[in-house]
Formats: sequence, structure tokens, C-alpha cells
Amino acid sequence: MPLAPLPRILIEPLVREALLEDLGRAGDLTTDAIVPQDLTTKTVMAARQEGVVAGLDLAALAFSLIDPAIRFRAVVEDGAAVKPGASVAIVEGPARGILTAERVALNFVSRMSGVASATAKLAAAVKHTKARIVCTRKTTPLLRAIEKHAVRAGGGSNHRFGLDDAVLVKDNHVAVAGSAAEAIRRARAYVGHLVKIEVEVESLVQLEEALRLGVDAVLLDNMSLEDLKRSVGMIDGRAISEASGRVTPETVGAIAETGVDLISVGWLTHSAPILDIGLDAA
Amino acid sequence: MPLAPLPRILIEPLVREALLEDLGRAGDLTTDAIVPQDLTTKTVMAARQEGVVAGLDLAALAFSLIDPAIRFRAVVEDGAAVKPGASVAIVEGPARGILTAERVALNFVSRMSGVASATAKLAAAVKHTKARIVCTRKTTPLLRAIEKHAVRAGGGSNHRFGLDDAVLVKDNHVAVAGSAAEAIRRARAYVGHLVKIEVEVESLVQLEEALRLGVDAVLLDNMSLEDLKRSVGMIDGRAISEASGRVTPETVGAIAETGVDLISVGWLTHSAPILDIGLDAA
Amino acid sequence: MPLAPLPRILIEPLVREALLEDLGRAGDLTTDAIVPQDLTTKTVMAARQEGVVAGLDLAALAFSLIDPAIRFRAVVEDGAAVKPGASVAIVEGPARGILTAERVALNFVSRMSGVASATAKLAAAVKHTKARIVCTRKTTPLLRAIEKHAVRAGGGSNHRFGLDDAVLVKDNHVAVAGSAAEAIRRARAYVGHLVKIEVEVESLVQLEEALRLGVDAVLLDNMSLEDLKRSVGMIDGRAISEASGRVTPETVGAIAETGVDLISVGWLTHSAPILDIGLDAA
Amino acid sequence: MPLAPLPRILIEPLVREALLEDLGRAGDLTTDAIVPQDLTTKTVMAARQEGVVAGLDLAALAFSLIDPAIRFRAVVEDGAAVKPGASVAIVEGPARGILTAERVALNFVSRMSGVASATAKLAAAVKHTKARIVCTRKTTPLLRAIEKHAVRAGGGSNHRFGLDDAVLVKDNHVAVAGSAAEAIRRARAYVGHLVKIEVEVESLVQLEEALRLGVDAVLLDNMSLEDLKRSVGMIDGRAISEASGRVTPETVGAIAETGVDLISVGWLTHSAPILDIGLDAA
Amino acid sequence: MPLAPLPRILIEPLVREALLEDLGRAGDLTTDAIVPQDLTTKTVMAARQEGVVAGLDLAALAFSLIDPAIRFRAVVEDGAAVKPGASVAIVEGPARGILTAERVALNFVSRMSGVASATAKLAAAVKHTKARIVCTRKTTPLLRAIEKHAVRAGGGSNHRFGLDDAVLVKDNHVAVAGSAAEAIRRARAYVGHLVKIEVEVESLVQLEEALRLGVDAVLLDNMSLEDLKRSVGMIDGRAISEASGRVTPETVGAIAETGVDLISVGWLTHSAPILDIGLDAA
Amino acid sequence: MPLAPLPRILIEPLVREALLEDLGRAGDLTTDAIVPQDLTTKTVMAARQEGVVAGLDLAALAFSLIDPAIRFRAVVEDGAAVKPGASVAIVEGPARGILTAERVALNFVSRMSGVASATAKLAAAVKHTKARIVCTRKTTPLLRAIEKHAVRAGGGSNHRFGLDDAVLVKDNHVAVAGSAAEAIRRARAYVGHLVKIEVEVESLVQLEEALRLGVDAVLLDNMSLEDLKRSVGMIDGRAISEASGRVTPETVGAIAETGVDLISVGWLTHSAPILDIGLDAA
Repeated sequence: MPLAPLPRILIEPLVREALLEDLGRAGDLTTDAIVPQDLTTKTVMAARQEGVVAGLDLAALAFSLIDPAIRFRAVVEDGAAVKPGASVAIVEGPARGILTAERVALNFVSRMSGVASATAKLAAAVKHTKARIVCTRKTTPLLRAIEKHAVRAGGGSNHRFGLDDAVLVKDNHVAVAGSAAEAIRRARAYVGHLVKIEVEVESLVQLEEALRLGVDAVLLDNMSLEDLKRSVGMIDGRAISEASGRVTPETVGAIAETGVDLISVGWLTHSAPILDIGLDAA
Repeated sequence: MPLAPLPRILIEPLVREALLEDLGRAGDLTTDAIVPQDLTTKTVMAARQEGVVAGLDLAALAFSLIDPAIRFRAVVEDGAAVKPGASVAIVEGPARGILTAERVALNFVSRMSGVASATAKLAAAVKHTKARIVCTRKTTPLLRAIEKHAVRAGGGSNHRFGLDDAVLVKDNHVAVAGSAAEAIRRARAYVGHLVKIEVEVESLVQLEEALRLGVDAVLLDNMSLEDLKRSVGMIDGRAISEASGRVTPETVGAIAETGVDLISVGWLTHSAPILDIGLDAA
Repeated sequence: MPLAPLPRILIEPLVREALLEDLGRAGDLTTDAIVPQDLTTKTVMAARQEGVVAGLDLAALAFSLIDPAIRFRAVVEDGAAVKPGASVAIVEGPARGILTAERVALNFVSRMSGVASATAKLAAAVKHTKARIVCTRKTTPLLRAIEKHAVRAGGGSNHRFGLDDAVLVKDNHVAVAGSAAEAIRRARAYVGHLVKIEVEVESLVQLEEALRLGVDAVLLDNMSLEDLKRSVGMIDGRAISEASGRVTPETVGAIAETGVDLISVGWLTHSAPILDIGLDAA
Repeated sequence: MPLAPLPRILIEPLVREALLEDLGRAGDLTTDAIVPQDLTTKTVMAARQEGVVAGLDLAALAFSLIDPAIRFRAVVEDGAAVKPGASVAIVEGPARGILTAERVALNFVSRMSGVASATAKLAAAVKHTKARIVCTRKTTPLLRAIEKHAVRAGGGSNHRFGLDDAVLVKDNHVAVAGSAAEAIRRARAYVGHLVKIEVEVESLVQLEEALRLGVDAVLLDNMSLEDLKRSVGMIDGRAISEASGRVTPETVGAIAETGVDLISVGWLTHSAPILDIGLDAA
Repeated sequence: MPLAPLPRILIEPLVREALLEDLGRAGDLTTDAIVPQDLTTKTVMAARQEGVVAGLDLAALAFSLIDPAIRFRAVVEDGAAVKPGASVAIVEGPARGILTAERVALNFVSRMSGVASATAKLAAAVKHTKARIVCTRKTTPLLRAIEKHAVRAGGGSNHRFGLDDAVLVKDNHVAVAGSAAEAIRRARAYVGHLVKIEVEVESLVQLEEALRLGVDAVLLDNMSLEDLKRSVGMIDGRAISEASGRVTPETVGAIAETGVDLISVGWLTHSAPILDIGLDAA
Repeated sequence: MPLAPLPRILIEPLVREALLEDLGRAGDLTTDAIVPQDLTTKTVMAARQEGVVAGLDLAALAFSLIDPAIRFRAVVEDGAAVKPGASVAIVEGPARGILTAERVALNFVSRMSGVASATAKLAAAVKHTKARIVCTRKTTPLLRAIEKHAVRAGGGSNHRFGLDDAVLVKDNHVAVAGSAAEAIRRARAYVGHLVKIEVEVESLVQLEEALRLGVDAVLLDNMSLEDLKRSVGMIDGRAISEASGRVTPETVGAIAETGVDLISVGWLTHSAPILDIGLDAA
């Protein structure tokens, strides 16, 4: 199934808030002063870099919330790979509205495309393996849903959306509980039957303990390639294996080749640069 | 005057929304299942990289909104330069609340510190000149106020906060008006007496026209160092000069040496990586 | 671990909105007209029926949002079984505020206690088995988080909190996909590694197909006790088994004795009557 | 005049919030994974029990907020009595949107229809008298406006909407004021000319006092049938008479026959079970 | 009973929104730049005109929302008559916060005091009669609750708070219904027992019809003094009488002397000038 | 360029909130009871006084948010001068919606037209000079953006929109800093390059100091005509000159003739009476 669009009801509050942030109390002074109300124009939203596009629905919404008379026609879909110069959308209609909404539309689409592009780069580097690239909870405050969508657009997969949709037992929790076994026992007793339990392990000894307890997934944190390989062997399909720590475009291939199921990368959402996308006269 | 803190009334809605985004409908399942309600702990928020810190008020608020019994004591202030390993704050109190709020607190502070650190690096590179580093409207949607604060924490200065607090006449506006002169005339007739007018120019001919019209500032876009130098000479104090385009840590020094007043850099807010900051047991 | 309280940040918006709904534009006319501002009083919140209490934090918040000088001291905790006449909390302070907030506080606590009490009744009826009582998504609009909390307070467990935290393949989805196998295949390919997949089956043939595909849980909808028993045998620990349909206090014991893991009951949240709780002069 | 629909501006925030509650951060995972975006379908919303329907506008809005391409055609209007199996609406259009919005739409309509049906049952039992069934402020938090609408749809009438649209002097207020007379005097001096004053009385002596003072309505709380009859005689049209306390479908007829104007029933909104309504393929 | 303060839960959203409106995205640039963070000051809020004060709670809240360290001590209460120069409150604490919140605090208190003062002037002019001054629904959008409070502070009384708390049959409604009788009949059949019904009449003939129907109040619109007097005689205590239209400080006394119960004045809330109140160094 | 309309995204929240304020929990009881749902009508919004119209977009939105079937056709544009009796808009469609939204629509348009008319009167009185009339921050809480728009509609110009879009150094700031020079130095060091700096001066000595420092504008507060004239001479084009204090329709002409650039008047937004505008059957 192709990537489903985010429901409008989820993204509209974000776009509305972003527009209000930019308009302030008085709106677009420059455009209101200079551009006649009845002038129309045709523009092209185009990539200036190679990458993967995401966030077109948010851009479309930015324009239509400013002026419903603006027509936004996506040339590609979220997830499309583009070359520099490629058109991603045609934006046509009242010139005032287009100029006023332009920056907010671009801020959304360039940021989300940045996340998608970074994901796609890592995904390509592990294509020869079964490993999938996943994001983390290190997302931009208030933008988690759309950044996770961008990760999917880039060919990645999503980790937890928040603290409430899965259990992830970290070293702190283990320390409090006294042992991983006790931590897992408490978690299992507490949560509903549709909540998965993942445990962070830092050594093969810890891994063995976790496997004995029967968790859904193990997070192999900061392990050497050697240990990752050995972990995958020990797990032998009894749990999902996730590697994390020190993942770069250079190292990700080797990590994937250890046989892990997932490689999680906070960098995708906390530090990926934008994909440069601009709006030009058509 | 040292950097004023952002008023709580401005940042509380952001922190509240970010916490709700992470808590979802059911809260922190892992912590609720494993950590006893009466356990207290003491942790240290520490930098793992060299950089400049910003956003401590937002981190403090994240903890106190989850549990007012958590004490957050900042060790440094926004704008402080830190070395790897340096403590930035002590966080003490109920363990549950600290674990639950940790990620949101770190997401704010690491992102804002990333912006401050990137700004500080460029600011350092132009310290021998009178040039100041300024940000743009290419900010993260919904986070403009705090990203602009982070730029100030890093020693930079702020450009427009939105479309309504200054006029910036760009090439599109000039095209619509027929000439820069006409665009400026319209702007001046339209806006209040406390609104400044800046015009983007791409050539010395355009610059001459703008200066003749008496604008407050000129944006010298994508000019060669040669042309920047010539522009500064032509301007001769009659307007504020701002250089933009292709600014990198390597090029910024030379750009500043042309004598421009400001160098604007979208990268600070749209693509600066985070500063790695973590929370450790004290 | 005992039931964790809902974070204040999650429940405060509900209580605030409920108070505003009751205060309207002019506040409590009767009390403002009749009760002197400096009068204080002491009242007892007491159960008038046997049942299980839930929602005390929301009641406490209702009083303190109206007047922070009101002291609310819970006598029991959420999840406590109470007899008719039992005190559940002492509420003391300004009489005006207590009278103004009373109805909203009671509306929350009596409704949530109703859900908890209904759950507790069913839970007691299956105590001799390993089955757990779970709720559904048939909750009161806007109150899902607190109703799910009330189910936990009553000794039950929670099913999905929404459409986004687990996959539940129903007959419609199977029909669209052409077969359960294809539906499950699509779901598995689409969602992240921490999302569980449950499938609704209506016959033993469908169950066999689902088990072959390796799902996390099966929803045995409206099956006879005979078929439930056979299903449990077929499943043999390979998936979590959930029975649903026509569950009443009378039938639930026999259903549990078939060996299913879970029995889901929409009635808990869509039709349980309140537990009668009142506020009396102390 | 037939029952007026609730203005969309009043109900849209509720429906929007309920949808967001169900969609969470990631939307309908199951449907997005399995159902193609261009598939359309036709379904029938049908009653599975006998009762009275209410809340169709909210159901319609739930579908259209998820996808404006969904066509919702009500077969009956709010207030219609239906038999098991009766269609209440045809819902047609994109299958994804219909599946995603289904539960929220049904949660609203089944709950409101439950309130309407319970009201209708009591209203039928008093049809041979002049008494009207009225609801109270014991409503579901945040849903008061729509529950009061459902009461009207069921043939009942509405008591106060909140603390600010009428004065209701209860025993507590009388105790504070020293006497009913003083309480009423204070209320009359305090409120505007369009605010009615009702007083709760528990004995014929209190009733006499209230009538002497000339109130708009008297609440006869928990009186015997005998006393109710006597009260009605004493009142003799000088005030509206309202009976409350221990009202059940079995007792309501006899209460009505005492001649009271109104019988108020908290149960309608705090404990009425839903009316079972489902969505089936057409 | 003295005027009850508006509940904080009702006014806080207004004050918060007003502060955000003034702070914009960057806060109080002037004060942040010039005033040291640790400077404290003591100021006096003082009337510069004779009038009646209202809105002190909103002023207090404005200061405390900006900085909880600011102490606001009211010298008088809402409803107090003040002479030019009279102190109404002492405001002490951090100078920055006081300067930042000053304008919003004064905007609330001077506007509400303006309404209260205008009301008090008219109330004084009718003191020798039984007539009361009442406001209308011609209030400032979003400020109705606080303007109605200000009217009460000035010694006036409140008309409807909105379209939902009383019926007011106007000429349009009568025209649609065909006659006042039919309009009143419909209204009585439609609304709950605690909703009063008032009818606007423009002639003695219409008045007679309304009285025959037994309404709660009649609005005598734009009648001559002669007709008002005759109306009062005809009504003879069977309904509340309200005069409206062309009320000025000069005419109000004569209108009151006709014996009407109420005189409603839209001008109080739509056109009363502010009472000049300022903040001075103590 | 003619006055640009305020973006719908800015005004919709205000209109929506104002409608909810008037509808309360139960909507327009009178209209729902009396007016059939399918009745349509045609009405004219007309001025009853001479003045300048503003706020038509808000009126239009009020009607369309209540019922999108209502057609609102503006006869004039914001800023148009009208005579008593002049039509400003035709409002046609469902009678219920028109009656329900009428008061909110009129409350917006009459208030904004009041501000515009007051501005226009002063603007006319200074037409023979170069002076412009400007408003202040003494606006109605929550309505600043639309009141500033109304000032522009009346031919005035806008001062600061808030504390964050310009620096205005007042006497308090000077006192804290020790001197105007120090205050200005701090401001200049603190704010961005697009923020203008204005300084309030109360004497010619202070003016001289401010001019020496090179500020963008000077606020000449409460000066005599003599001193204003001298100030203008001293300034000699080096800064914008703004006069304030004791401005009335009678004095404004003479103030303007002193040669000042701007005359600021708080009265426009804090005390201008409404322009009487009504809705009549067409």
C-alpha cells in the first residue's frame, strides 16, 4: 500500500498556527502595500537539490488557508525522489496570497523533505540487507507526527510515537527495578495486551537475560559490529533486533550486514538539514 | 544588558503542547509500570559536545509541568559556552517525573543549543569586524520565537520576526511594482512610521536606485566579495547593509571583511544540527 | 505496581472545560447571591452505593481550579472498594468555591466510579480464571483517557487507546483485502515494529488462517462457548485470545472458563450507570 | 416548531476533538495499511434496538471532517422513533474515510440516542398527564449541550444549562442564609430580571414559606406521592412544580398523576445506556 | 450581598490572550533592553478622573501572569467611587514585569471602569425612583462577561447574557409568526421552565396583547413618556416593564419617573469612554 | 494601494469566539422557537449616522459561520464615507441564521466603524497639513488587530502593534537608565536592525539630547503649541516627530499646523463611540 496522506484534521492546526506565527498581528505588510489585490500569477515549486520530497499536503494547505482561490497541483507525491531543478508542484492564483503563504509552505516542505532525504540516503545504504531504518523520539517539539510521516516517505519506518504506545525499558528503568527481569515482569503486569515491550541491552549477558524473559524487541545500544553479529545469532528470531548508536552514512551498511532487523537514528529528525526547495515564477 | 529570558507566558504553551505530544493518551507506560511513585533521584544535565547552551527555561518548565516537586537548578545561563562534559543543570526530585519529562526537556534544549552553537561559531568568525550574524524567517514552524532567542543566545541578532514587523521588498515585489522605486514608494505610503523598509538588490545599479530612495536597509543578495565591498562604499552609512547567500563558516570571515553591517544565514535555524546534551545520574 | 495517577497535564484541560461549561458566562448566580465570601465549611464526599472509586484526582482538581484555598483530602485511592456511606474524601475551605465546583467534581467521580465498579463486578466474576476484562473504543467522546483509567482502577485492562496504537483487522478490512492473509500481510508491511496486530475471526477456519500467519492476538467475535474452547485449544499459546460479544455479568464466568486470555466489553464505557456519590456537610 | 438543529459552530469543536482523540498521532493504521485510497463504498447506519434517534448531525460531521467527499444522508431526523433494523442514515463515499470516522460517529449517535430513548420511555409513561420530563446538571462533562439536545429529541424538556442561567436555591443555600426567605431575598436582589428563581423544598412547611415569597418554581425533593399531591394543591398555579427523587419507569406515572408540572431525572444523562446503532455494508 | 468577583477560571483566558496580543513574538523589547532584571519598584495605580472602578482582578492577573513575584494590593474594591488622584491599587515588585504588564492591566481596568462609571451616572439619576439601569447584548465582542460585571459594579443590573438564557421576542419574530400571540405561544412551547419570556412592544395595542398572554417582561421600545406612563398603568405589576431607546443622562430621570422597572441602555457597553487610570511611581 | 483586507485566518477566531459567546450552550432560543427553518429573507445593513464604515469582512464572516447559505454582499468597502440611511451591505438567505448572527455582526461593524469615523474626523481636521493621525496601544483587549485596521480605514496610520515591533523609550525607562542617552544606547545594542527606536521627550532639552543620539522618532508629549513648533524646527527632518496629549477635534488642527509628522490619539480606540448601524428588512 503506498504511504497514506496524513488526515487534514491532524495537519491543519499546525499549518494554521505556523501561518499565524508569520502573519503576526498585521499580516504581510510588504505584499499588501505593493501587490494589487486582483493580480494573479503562476509559480513552480522546485527542488534545488537532489533528495526525496515530503510535506506537499502541508504546503498545499498553507496556500489554501491564506486564499482558497489558490490552486496547488502536486507534480510528484510524498516519497518521490527528485533531481535539482525538478518541479514538485505548480502554484497558481492570486499573487498576494501566494507571496504571503510562500515562506510557511516552503518551511514545512523543505524541512520534511530534509528528513525524508536523510532517511532515503540511509535506506539506500542498507538496501542489500533486510535492515530497516527507523526514527526515534528525538523529534522537533510539536512536529512529531509530520516528521514521522517524512521518515516513512523516505523509506524508513517508525519507532514509538510517544511514551504511551509501547514500553521501552532503558538502563534507568532496569536500575530502579533491580534487574531487567524485574523491570520486564512489572511492565508485562501493567500494560494492555496490545502494547509491545522492548528492552535496551548493552551486553550479551543482558541480552541473554532479556531473551529468556521473552520480550518483543531488544535495543542493542552502542555495540561493536562483532557483538551485534553475535547478538543476532543469539536472538535467532525470538525477538526483533534494533541497533542504535553512532550510525552514520558510512557505518550504516556494515551495521545492517550484521543481520539486525532495525537501525534507529535520532539524527534523522533532530539534525538532518533541510532539502532546498524554492518557489519560482513559472 | 544580558539576554532577557523569554516570558513564561510565551513559552508555556509550547512546552505544554510538546509534553502532550509525547504523553499521548496514556502517559509514560514504562515509567508508570516500573518506577515507584515515591522514589526520588538526582540527575545532571550535561553537554556531550562543545557549544553554546540555550533553552534552559524550556527544559525547566518541562520538568515542572510534569511534577512541580522537581527542582531544576541551572548551572549556567542561556548563552554560556560549554565544553564536553560540562554540567548545565541539576535536576532533582521524583524519579517518575524526571524520567517522563526528560526527552521533551532535552529535545528543546538540544535543538535550541544547536542553533545557538551554530550562531556562535559564525559570530566568532567575524569577531574582528563590525559585522553581526542575523537569522531569517526560515525557521522551524511554530518555534520561531524560541529559535530567534537561541540566535541571540549565540551572539547573533534577529531579522524580522514575521511578515508584519518590517517591510522587505524582494525581487518579486519589484517585478510587480515595475521598479524598485515604485515598490518603495508604495511601501512608504502604506506602513506606519515605526516600520522599517529594507530592499533586496542584486546589482550595483539596483543598489544606487534604492539608496536614492532612502531606504533603511539593503539586502545584498548573492553578491561577489568584490561587489559587496563596492556596495559598502556606495552606501557610505546611508543605510544598513546586509549580505546574504552562500554563507559558510569558511566564507563568512571574508564576507564580513567587506564591511557589511549584517550577514544573514537561514542555515542557523533550518539546518543546524542539535548540540548533544544528555541527562545522567548525578 | 499500583495504578499510576493520570498526569495533571492530561486531565486539567478536561476539568477546566467542564467547569467553564457549568459556569457559563456569569458563574454560580445562586451561590454568589446567597453565600458570604468569607464563609468556610467542611464537607465529606461519600459513596451512597457499594462499588469501586475512580476519578478522585479530577474531583480534587475541580475544587482547586475554582479556589486554590479549598483543601481536598482523599480518604481512599482510585481503585478502592467502598460500602454505602463510606467517605471517599474530605473537602474543606471556602463555602462558595465548594458549592460552585461540587457538581462538576461529582459528575467526574461518579461517572468514573461507575465505570470502575462495572469493571470490578466482571473482574470478580472471572477471578477464578486467568481471563482479564478489557474495554473497547466505545468510550464517551473526549473522555477516553479517563474512562480507560477507570477501567484499570476497576481491575480491568485496556485495549487500544485509538486507531493509531495497534492494528485491529476487522471483517471489513478482510473483505477489502480479499482474505485475512492479504490483510495481515499489508498491515505487517505498513506498520512499525512496535505495533501489534490483532485479527477478528468469526469461525475456526478463519482462526486457523490467522494463526498460520502469526498474528499477535485474535479477536474471537460472538463465538459459542464450544467454539471458544476449541479456539483456545487451537491457539495453544501462539497468540493472545480475546472473546467479545454478548458478555453479561451472568455469562462472563462461563466465557472465562473457556480459557481465553481476555474478554472485551464495550458496555463498561458506553453504558455503565454512575456510582452514586454525594457531598454532605461533615 | 420542530426541534432546531444545534448550530454547527457549537458541535464542530466536539466532533473535531473526538476525532483527534481517536486518531492519535498516526491516524488509522489498519485502514491506511489495508484499504486502497480510491476505493468507495456504501453503508447504512441502522438501529439494532428500538428507541429514539438523536445526534445525526454529529455523526454527519464526523464523516465530513475526515473526508468532505463522504456523503451522509439522514433517513430520519433527530427525535424519530425507530424499530430494530431501521436505517437511520446512508453513508457513501471513500471507504477509508468511512472506516476511519465510523467509531466516533457511532459513539456520538448511540450515546445521544440512548439519552433520547430513555427520555422517550419516561415521556410515554406520563403522556396521559400534563407533566413533562426534564433533565438535570448531572450530565457527562463536556457533553452537556448535546445531551440536553438529546433530551429534547426524546420529548423531554431542559432544566438549567448551567450555574448561570437560573437560580436554584438548595438546602445548603438555605442553611447558609438562615432561612429560605432570606435566601430568596438575597437571590432576588442579586440577579437580573430575566433570571428565574427556583427553590428546593423538602416539606409542606417549607413549601408554604416559598410560596409566600413568590418564587418562579419549587423543586419538591423526594416527597411521597401524598405530599406531592398536597403540594400541587397548595401551589395552585402560583409557581411551577417540579418533582425529583427516586424516579423510575415504574414510578414516574404515579408521580405525574399527582399533578406536578415537571419530573426531573438525573438518570437520563448520567446512566442511560446507549442505543445500539451500527454501520453495515449497504 | 456585595458584588462577587468573577471566577479566575473565567477571566484568566482573557488576560492571557491580551498579554500575548501585546507581547507578540518577542516580548517587551524596550524594557528588556533597558531595565535590569533584578530592579524592583513600587507604583500606584490611580484614577485621573472621577468615576467608579471595575476590573481590578483583571489588572492583578495581568501583573501576576507576567511575573508571579509582583504584588498587587487593591486599595478599593470593584464598585468603589473614586475621586481624581485616588489610589486604586499598589503594585510592587520586579520593575520589568510591572512595565511589561502595565498597558494590558490599564486597558482592562480603564475600560471596565468606564462602563461602571457610565452606569453609575445613570443609576444616580434614577435613584429617586425604583427603576434600575440595565445593559444589553450590544457589548464588545469577547468581553461580554466582564462588561456585564462592570455594569453591576456601577450599580446597574444585567439583561440577557446571550441568545440562550432568555427569550426576547422582537418585531422580526412577531412578523414571522404573524402575531405576538403566536410568537409567544411558540416560545412557551419550545423552551424550558426556567427560561423567561420578554416581548418587545411598540404600541399600547401590542402591549395589551402581550399582557393578555402573560409574559414575564415587556420591552417598551422608543415610547413617549406619556405612553410609558400609560403602559406602566396597564401592566399594573403583571409583568416587568423595561424602557429602551433614546436614553441619555438628561432623559433618564424622566423616563424612570414613568414608573418603569428597568431602563436598558446599549450605550453603557458600546460607547462609554474609558475612565482615565494610570500607573505612577509611588 | 487601497487598504488590504485582513486575512481571514486572522479574523475568523475572533468572529467564531464572539458567536460562541452569544450562542452560549443552547443557541438562539427565540429564533429556534419562532422562525421556521426554511424561511428565507432579505435584509439591508444600513448606517443610521454619518461616518466611515469598517469591519464588513467580520460581519460577513459572522453570517457565514452561522449558516454558509447566507449571502452577504457589501455595497461599500471598508473606508467608505456614508450618510445616514446609506446601505452598507445586503444580507440574504435563511432567516434563522440572519437573526441569530445579526447582533454579533453589528457589534463588530458598528464598533470598528466607530473607530474609523473618529479617525476620519480628526484626519479631515488636519488635511491641510502633512500631519497624520495615529493610534496607540490603548486598544480594546483582544481586538487590537481589527481596531488598528479600522484606524487605517478611517484614514489614519498605525503606531506600534505591540511591545515587540518597535522600541518606545518612555520616561520610566529613562529614569531607570539614568539618562535618555544611556537608555537609547542600551536599546540600540539590544534590538535587531529592523526595529525602530522612538523616544518620549518632555522638554526641548531632552529633545536635543535625543536628536544628538540619532533616534528614528521622537514623541513630543503634552507640549505647548509653541514648544511643538520649536521642536519641529530643531528636529529639521532628522527624526519623525509625533505629538501626543490633549488632542481633541478642536485642538488637532492647531497641533498639526506646528509641522509635526504625526499626532497620536488613544481616544480613537479606547473611547470612540460606535457608529450606529442596523439591519432592516429589505
